[in-house]
Amino acid sequence: MLTYEQYQQRLVDAVPRLPAEEVAVTDPVALLGRVIATPVRSAVPLPGFTNSAMDGYAVRAADIAAASERSPVTLPVAGDIPAGDTRSLRLEPGTAWRIMTGAPVPDGADTVVQVELTDAGTEQVAIRAALPEGAAVRHAGEDVVAGDEVLPAGTLLHPRHVPVLASAGVQRISAIRRPRIAIVSTGDELVPIGGEAGHGQVVDSNGPMLAALVHEGGFELAATRRVGDTGDEVRAVLTELAADADLIVTTGGVSAGAFEPLKLAFEDSDDDFDFVKVSMQPGKPQGFGMLGDTPVFALPGNPVSSLVSFLIFVAPAARTMAGRSPALPTGTARVGERWQSPPGRTQFARVVYDDEGRVVRPVGEQGSHVLGGLAGSQALAIVPGDTTEVAVGETVAVIPLAGLA
Amino acid sequence: MLTYEQYQQRLVDAVPRLPAEEVAVTDPVALLGRVIATPVRSAVPLPGFTNSAMDGYAVRAADIAAASERSPVTLPVAGDIPAGDTRSLRLEPGTAWRIMTGAPVPDGADTVVQVELTDAGTEQVAIRAALPEGAAVRHAGEDVVAGDEVLPAGTLLHPRHVPVLASAGVQRISAIRRPRIAIVSTGDELVPIGGEAGHGQVVDSNGPMLAALVHEGGFELAATRRVGDTGDEVRAVLTELAADADLIVTTGGVSAGAFEPLKLAFEDSDDDFDFVKVSMQPGKPQGFGMLGDTPVFALPGNPVSSLVSFLIFVAPAARTMAGRSPALPTGTARVGERWQSPPGRTQFARVVYDDEGRVVRPVGEQGSHVLGGLAGSQALAIVPGDTTEVAVGETVAVIPLAGLA
Repeated sequence: MLTYEQYQQRLVDAVPRLPAEEVAVTDPVALLGRVIATPVRSAVPLPGFTNSAMDGYAVRAADIAAASERSPVTLPVAGDIPAGDTRSLRLEPGTAWRIMTGAPVPDGADTVVQVELTDAGTEQVAIRAALPEGAAVRHAGEDVVAGDEVLPAGTLLHPRHVPVLASAGVQRISAIRRPRIAIVSTGDELVPIGGEAGHGQVVDSNGPMLAALVHEGGFELAATRRVGDTGDEVRAVLTELAADADLIVTTGGVSAGAFEPLKLAFEDSDDDFDFVKVSMQPGKPQGFGMLGDTPVFALPGNPVSSLVSFLIFVAPAARTMAGRSPALPTGTARVGERWQSPPGRTQFARVVYDDEGRVVRPVGEQGSHVLGGLAGSQALAIVPGDTTEVAVGETVAVIPLAGLA
Repeated sequence: MLTYEQYQQRLVDAVPRLPAEEVAVTDPVALLGRVIATPVRSAVPLPGFTNSAMDGYAVRAADIAAASERSPVTLPVAGDIPAGDTRSLRLEPGTAWRIMTGAPVPDGADTVVQVELTDAGTEQVAIRAALPEGAAVRHAGEDVVAGDEVLPAGTLLHPRHVPVLASAGVQRISAIRRPRIAIVSTGDELVPIGGEAGHGQVVDSNGPMLAALVHEGGFELAATRRVGDTGDEVRAVLTELAADADLIVTTGGVSAGAFEPLKLAFEDSDDDFDFVKVSMQPGKPQGFGMLGDTPVFALPGNPVSSLVSFLIFVAPAARTMAGRSPALPTGTARVGERWQSPPGRTQFARVVYDDEGRVVRPVGEQGSHVLGGLAGSQALAIVPGDTTEVAVGETVAVIPLAGLA
């Protein structure tokens, strides 16, 4: 059997990298979580004009060289320069302009005296300190020269990147597409969420859960579908979806029963599609193949296996397609209560946190169909295959289930 | 001056708690990040019918009591029961049905023999092991009885909660509204993102940055507006927005200049509005008040101060309104390179990670107008007010800037 690391690597290597596209910067929310494909260069110098770093008075340093607390220098005030003043003003030697933070420093001025060092006069102002030339002046282009790289290729866009993007005056940037993921739940027994399950039927819980995981992971949802248990129907729906989606996730139909629709559709076909067993619990039976350029991840059908398989296999591959690092964030915690793990298989155990996240303990039964235990868990602890008993005080790797984006 | 913790607590105490509303479960993506207001109880038993945990054969345990590897018991097979079979079937004593995982166990059967313990026959089946009654059978209601609580009040909805929500057959749940936040950038100098900044003008970078922070924080954006530097205009726009938004954030107009529109609008008014100084860097000047039931957070105008103020004051208050815990996730890291911190003020220093997040070092200049340093940072390190030099090897608290939701 493959280890989960081997299988994960195989998938990450197999998926295509998505192309970049030009996107407008005017809706930065739409850019969040996307990766910049080519460096962003500023179209303008920053600051765009020489401006004041303080509320105060624009002067020539030479005119206040004699100023002190005991003998202030008094200058006539030519007027106010508020922020947003678009006039091109001049300072006459021996005078001052009252100026606000961010307002353009008038030609001829080289220094700004902050208001706290003055009497705050409006007709004339008494200045109580000498200052070096350039004090409280931000010079045009001192942060960025036009043409400077302001964001490198590979940047994963977060809110902190928006100010420089906005200020750089670029209209469009080149960013890698977020994978559009289609979700297909298989099984004749499924009824849609919100519908009523009769005898022998169950509500499709994988479809909406995976849609939520797609959203939380920073990907886009292309479609959600339910299909019955025939290979022909599965093949038809997947072929149709592959025309639009960047990646398809199916659930169910990959184990050892007589009606396993993914296997019926692909196992003996000419397609490049493999069904494997991975030494993990839950999530042992897995399938993967390409439909044209579209990777198809065939996950096992029970919800706990589906969630674990999405996090361990689909998310790293989809992140890779998007130009991100494959690895989900993980942490470590100490074991607060013993539990057992199957020999020879990596266990992804559902755990809850104690002691502000420093300690974990198992939650509910670890059976893969127990929905309450899944809902009640806060993280997955990763127990290596050679461990059969997880002892109190040991350190385990954990994948937090809250906040995966 | 107030400490940032004192001011944060004052704001968390001051904001209203938002009401719950009924929402349909059919779009779980729309429910992500919302808090459940009243316990969710299952409308149905789970499983809804007694079903098979394995692919195999439904039998009576008594009929295979003599089976062993050496002398298998052979039973006639009555037919197939695939998953999704809605027939109400019966097992005749001394016979077997071939049954798939999740398919309904026929009346009269009490045990499922997994296919691996048989010859997988379709007309008749040779069974090579005796099994205890109930093996591989999931009984109706064994996980959940109708009326059981499946999700407690206070649950913050994540993808892992979707399966139990879908399966419980509930149509609507009561969830607390996500705060709808309006963003108002003040300043005559502002032009919109994507526009061209002439002499004296700058692109509004706070508005789109805060919109992105709203999105990343799990809140909803009600509106973004730009207003000029008069108190009347600010008051008019805020009054209009307060009719629809749950919370308003403004930037600019709270410091010591001659044209501070937030102060002009509210400082000497009858409104319950306070302007304070908080012993922190950046983010010292802050304003807060209520316009009717709508809290207004008046943040300082430069982008770094705005971002820090949003994370430290707005996000905890908005999370509280949404029924979540106020605190943003924080971590700790070791200092890899020394830096200085102002005496008497808590510094929120922009840092980057080293050594897989275990070490931090300062990035760029710590001046509050330097956009490149903001974009290049990966976390904020929190340096207490009594520290003036952050030494190599010390441990500092950090707020990661990636993935705040």
